[in-house]
Amino acid sequence: MKIDYQPIEWLGNRVRILDQTKLPQKETYLVTDDYRKVAGAIKELKVRGAPAIGIAGAYGVALGASKIKSASREEFLKQVQKVSDAIASTRPTARNLFFALERMQKASTKGKTSVDIKKVLMAEAIKIHKEEADATKRLSELGAGLIKKGWTILTHCNTGPLAPSGYGTALGVIIAAHKQGKKIQVLADETRPLLQGARLTAWELKKAGVPVTLITDSMAGHFMRVGKVDCVITGADRIAANGDTANKIGTYPLAVVAKENKIPFYIAAPVSTIDMKMKSGARIPIEERGADEVMRFNGQLLVLDGINAANPAFDVTPNKYITAIITDKGIIKPPYLEGIKKLI
Amino acid sequence: MKIDYQPIEWLGNRVRILDQTKLPQKETYLVTDDYRKVAGAIKELKVRGAPAIGIAGAYGVALGASKIKSASREEFLKQVQKVSDAIASTRPTARNLFFALERMQKASTKGKTSVDIKKVLMAEAIKIHKEEADATKRLSELGAGLIKKGWTILTHCNTGPLAPSGYGTALGVIIAAHKQGKKIQVLADETRPLLQGARLTAWELKKAGVPVTLITDSMAGHFMRVGKVDCVITGADRIAANGDTANKIGTYPLAVVAKENKIPFYIAAPVSTIDMKMKSGARIPIEERGADEVMRFNGQLLVLDGINAANPAFDVTPNKYITAIITDKGIIKPPYLEGIKKLI
Repeated sequence: MKIDYQPIEWLGNRVRILDQTKLPQKETYLVTDDYRKVAGAIKELKVRGAPAIGIAGAYGVALGASKIKSASREEFLKQVQKVSDAIASTRPTARNLFFALERMQKASTKGKTSVDIKKVLMAEAIKIHKEEADATKRLSELGAGLIKKGWTILTHCNTGPLAPSGYGTALGVIIAAHKQGKKIQVLADETRPLLQGARLTAWELKKAGVPVTLITDSMAGHFMRVGKVDCVITGADRIAANGDTANKIGTYPLAVVAKENKIPFYIAAPVSTIDMKMKSGARIPIEERGADEVMRFNGQLLVLDGINAANPAFDVTPNKYITAIITDKGIIKPPYLEGIKKLI
Repeated sequence: MKIDYQPIEWLGNRVRILDQTKLPQKETYLVTDDYRKVAGAIKELKVRGAPAIGIAGAYGVALGASKIKSASREEFLKQVQKVSDAIASTRPTARNLFFALERMQKASTKGKTSVDIKKVLMAEAIKIHKEEADATKRLSELGAGLIKKGWTILTHCNTGPLAPSGYGTALGVIIAAHKQGKKIQVLADETRPLLQGARLTAWELKKAGVPVTLITDSMAGHFMRVGKVDCVITGADRIAANGDTANKIGTYPLAVVAKENKIPFYIAAPVSTIDMKMKSGARIPIEERGADEVMRFNGQLLVLDGINAANPAFDVTPNKYITAIITDKGIIKPPYLEGIKKLI
């Protein structure tokens, strides 16, 4: 599969980030060597999707470190930690960001001098990027094996090459199945409030030549009930050790309704999304974003002044609703506690 | 409860319709004696909500009849039927429209001359309006008895005084419970694609002084799962003889997730919404509206050209997910086939 766009590219001493908030109308890029701008891009969803957030975070640390002037190793590492903390504070839910920051932290201990460490961090960020891209490629091909000819697949939010950089998670599986000639079609939830499905998923599927029909999030249940959906696949922002999965708000009801209608519900994510320290989904932090995203639609105010809105960005799907978790290291089926432990 | 706005008012020889597509930003009215304009207002959702559509349809027939010049009774009735057919073709799902048109048809046989019939039809439309308003008042007060102090109630679409003219169905129950001092609060689904929840429900609840938090449709499941919802109440567009209920797209998944979380799920509707000829929900016609409503917002295209969208306006909730149906003639509990037959 040839992808002619990249959410993140490393330019040697700067990072180039495709501004996804402007898609599909405009393809504009942020090119920067300033880690604060990288953190800003994560916070404002210019770069988004769990794996891509991790990659951007790693480059942010490498860029931040490269600018630190301190001579002593100890002082240098302290400042690197500050950069890392600033990036960690952008978005609390996606595991991949913390996975990447932990790897960068570990890598930083390997250099003897600050000059060494700068080089080590840059190399580690590039390595994370490559490994995450390879992981999505592997999981996409593995997952495509679950898809049968002629299926209609329902998906939520955006999980294509834009989200994980390289291939895709849920959309990677879908595109891989399409390339295998499975003649599938996709129902794409628009994914309110930020419309990643309408803006990004529909755009990516069209680029990939996969037939796609856009629906509102509220229509997914209807299409499942009337037998128009053969399986549901979504990505994940964090998977607990027992398989409970945090993903874009609206995923949980899809999983419940899929189970009610005996439709397989798959999660597709690289193992970097799994958080072994999280025993279940109960304590996964759920990012609460600004009410404005709900009160407005593409910038236009929907409601009168004085109306409140809530905006949890993710929900948690308990493991009992998940048919299988597709990872780069294999497809995990219930019971997840054992399956995940074995894989990791 | 004092309501300072009316979706439909009869001005003696014309009807005044509040244009709900412009709310909450503008309160503008259509005043007309032309039945084609009334039909247009129904089709374009200027007037909407199952009972209000029925009332508008009845006035449309009365207005259409008043303009017919033919002298012979037979020819006159034939032309009235044409008016009725034109109004019937606007929206296929809401039972109340057909209930009203059937009543008007029956009434038309009572007049001896065309002059008589014109009078009879006008009187019948006014009667339907009053009866539907009274029905929503009764069901609201009955339904409020199901609501416990301090509850958080989730609702979908708009079912306040705007929808049924007079009181409200689901929102009527909510507002009645509020007036009884039950200190309730509401989570209102925005209700894509046409955002009746964000535009109308939030606006009506604010007018009524009920604390309301707006959420996207995709957030409802999350709030149910985490224990923040005590009951769900929606209206209905058509209820089959076995209790299966067609309502705004997105209602079915709410009912499934409510059941999964042991949260009561109530339907509130006047008995005019019940269609005894429909044995189950399987054959209730589901209106498919233009794809543009999903692809655009306020004229702004969300997706690139060449993306398809689906737009079913309703879904069907099988009776097994419904805790009770609140009507003006009593609260029906399962088994519905017997309960509904007894009531009607």
